[in-house]
Amino acid sequence: MIIFPKAQYPLNRGCVDSIDPEKLRMQQSHPSPSVNLAAYCQQTADLARDASTDLAQLPSPAKNQWLVASAQHLLRHSEKIIVANNCDLDHARNIGLSPATLDRLRLDTHRIQIIADAMLAIARLDDPIGQIIHSSVRPNGLKVEQVRVPLGVIFFIYESRPNVTADAAALCVKSGNAVILRGGKEALHSSRAIVDLLTEQVNACGIPAGAVQLVQTTDREAVGHFLRMSHCIDVAIPRGGRGLVERVCSEARMPVIKHFDGNCHVYVDAHADLEMAERIVINSKTQRMGVCNACESLLVHEQIAPLFLPRIALLLAEQQVEIRGDATVCRWIMNAQSANEDDWSTEYLGPIISIRVVGSPAEAIQHINRFGSHHTDAVVTDSLQVATEFTRQVDSAAVMVNASTRFNDGGELGLGAEIGISTDKLHARGPCGLQALTSYKYLVHGSGHIRQS
Amino acid sequence: MIIFPKAQYPLNRGCVDSIDPEKLRMQQSHPSPSVNLAAYCQQTADLARDASTDLAQLPSPAKNQWLVASAQHLLRHSEKIIVANNCDLDHARNIGLSPATLDRLRLDTHRIQIIADAMLAIARLDDPIGQIIHSSVRPNGLKVEQVRVPLGVIFFIYESRPNVTADAAALCVKSGNAVILRGGKEALHSSRAIVDLLTEQVNACGIPAGAVQLVQTTDREAVGHFLRMSHCIDVAIPRGGRGLVERVCSEARMPVIKHFDGNCHVYVDAHADLEMAERIVINSKTQRMGVCNACESLLVHEQIAPLFLPRIALLLAEQQVEIRGDATVCRWIMNAQSANEDDWSTEYLGPIISIRVVGSPAEAIQHINRFGSHHTDAVVTDSLQVATEFTRQVDSAAVMVNASTRFNDGGELGLGAEIGISTDKLHARGPCGLQALTSYKYLVHGSGHIRQS
Repeated sequence: MIIFPKAQYPLNRGCVDSIDPEKLRMQQSHPSPSVNLAAYCQQTADLARDASTDLAQLPSPAKNQWLVASAQHLLRHSEKIIVANNCDLDHARNIGLSPATLDRLRLDTHRIQIIADAMLAIARLDDPIGQIIHSSVRPNGLKVEQVRVPLGVIFFIYESRPNVTADAAALCVKSGNAVILRGGKEALHSSRAIVDLLTEQVNACGIPAGAVQLVQTTDREAVGHFLRMSHCIDVAIPRGGRGLVERVCSEARMPVIKHFDGNCHVYVDAHADLEMAERIVINSKTQRMGVCNACESLLVHEQIAPLFLPRIALLLAEQQVEIRGDATVCRWIMNAQSANEDDWSTEYLGPIISIRVVGSPAEAIQHINRFGSHHTDAVVTDSLQVATEFTRQVDSAAVMVNASTRFNDGGELGLGAEIGISTDKLHARGPCGLQALTSYKYLVHGSGHIRQS
Repeated sequence: MIIFPKAQYPLNRGCVDSIDPEKLRMQQSHPSPSVNLAAYCQQTADLARDASTDLAQLPSPAKNQWLVASAQHLLRHSEKIIVANNCDLDHARNIGLSPATLDRLRLDTHRIQIIADAMLAIARLDDPIGQIIHSSVRPNGLKVEQVRVPLGVIFFIYESRPNVTADAAALCVKSGNAVILRGGKEALHSSRAIVDLLTEQVNACGIPAGAVQLVQTTDREAVGHFLRMSHCIDVAIPRGGRGLVERVCSEARMPVIKHFDGNCHVYVDAHADLEMAERIVINSKTQRMGVCNACESLLVHEQIAPLFLPRIALLLAEQQVEIRGDATVCRWIMNAQSANEDDWSTEYLGPIISIRVVGSPAEAIQHINRFGSHHTDAVVTDSLQVATEFTRQVDSAAVMVNASTRFNDGGELGLGAEIGISTDKLHARGPCGLQALTSYKYLVHGSGHIRQS
């Protein structure tokens, strides 16, 4: 295998539109470009694998020391991050990305402070590694302990804002895992500046080199190489649009923690405080429209529909939200569009909401379990019976009672930061914090025990 | 879609070699045989899906009542099971299966008693469903609970002995899941008799029809149909040989809990009690040779090798176990074969063991992590330091200190029965008991909480 020492891999450190994989290949002296890329990916994965063995044994103080030192280092050198971020912003403007995207991409001293604060918050969280999840002494005297251990090597592929780079690195190292970060190409320079600063603190804190690596090419083929390395990488975590998640699921040879649609509902019950319902619907729908825990569909009990529908229509109109409703909704809300069957299953991620009138809590629950995406669903009610029925029967990662759907978020639920929100039922469901990045092993202590049957 | 009421599906209730899928198709009146099989599978999955909704809400007493009633019913009608089992045994003899296989297949009153006892033991286990795994009150007053819920519908494909049919049904129902059982064709009549008896107790105990279903055809295509139904089935669990597990992994569109090789080690340290080491090596290797937690490879510290190797060679010879060793082993054990590189990675599942001499605990750990299958590995030592080093650094589902590898088993570790032993790190690792068949959801209670940022 051809090994590229990190410095020899032709990185593009200048401020350019993006790394051109063709140019990169031309610069290689080896005959087959794909061999070079494959070897680079293998080298990265091997380095991560080696690092993971040491990371698994690392005591909490070393990990926390690195988190604190890195946070301080990011703040001290925020100018470097901002210069790199300006490269990304220039490129984004040149290729005509939207003002909203530019805003998501932008880093300033305030936003870098938030990144650093998140790292400090992760340093303060309990270390999950080594926790004894369960222990027992068997009748024959064998002592059995179920002990939490890291997963090993995590391949994290994301399209999100550059702050996710630091969050993911911090969560992975704190949970004793090595991470290979593959960020969106729009944020490449910003992510690289952040990872460079994080790795500069590695040696002093006893963190193995290779604990945090950023993939140094935007070549899509690199992702394919990593997804085939099930012998080196324990889990792939995609965070981004449906296309990315589907590609990772279909190509990955290792387990994937997935995040698909967030078609979230608010059900306003007959026994609801209507002012509270207004606040929760408007917050769930409009506080941030493009996120997975935003409300996409509103269900209203028929008894309060004549009173509530005109009121909520007014508030939604103020926020320029288009309404697509069933026949009853269209009777009570003049400018509502007629919803078709597809609307009930659609995650708009924008200023549209579907509204349906239901005859009972049971009908609301049935609608949610049928058309929803099992992500986040809320009920507004004063009835204990309805709240209990709703929380027991709605089969979603998070079920809210008299609270906004927007609270389904790692930070808000007390998990610290999150590396993503899982729509799977296996391994991790909902926001994935430190614990989602761990496994366990059984330790069994005997005194010469042998099995008889 | 074409619906087959259960009774109309052309079951073969007689004592025959096996259900002939071709004959089955001929009996159908519809033009395309694959449509019939597909429709039968879809109907089975839909029934399971419906059952899972009710099962998730079922209180513990109803589930336990069914477990106890079923255990009694199996005992009361053990004659029916034995008649069906004789059909399977006759067929097995006719096609020339080995005496060992015939013995595994055979059911008698004693073995049926063991099956019933296992169901009663599962009835006595704590119900995992509804357990609050974690709860907290956030600074803003939101109350957050992480509550254990069933996975939903489980497709269980197994090649094992007929007792697994009852174990799997009991574990799935106790954990609030519906299960579709696809047993090995050799045990079809036995499994059918058991499932018939279990489902006869369903109505009286308030368990939904469809909670436990046996696939009523041996057609291999049926497995393919089920593995594509990710909208109906939440997880596939194969239990059997590598071929079965690989087929399921490659075809399944839903998550799979896998069980691959068990290449298990015993490391006899310089500080070992050699008599204890003998007992543990012989028990680990020979108590049952064909199982996944049997020892396949022995590592011996060089300091004790001259003393220990001849002693263990004698005991292994008594059990007709062939030795494949490295150069040092071949020097000390006259009739040892020379091991090649493949031997270190091989799960023999029979009377062969590989033996290697190592210079240190670190070398043993390195060998195990490199060549082992991360299943079960044991150390025999009196040194606390070596025990700690071994348990911390060996990356396996179960790590034993001074105990036989054979203890990596759900019953022995206190989990009750097990539906399989996972070699995955995600979701469940090691023996999969009730808890491995569950997920969780977050319940969030507020009083009109909305999110500000």
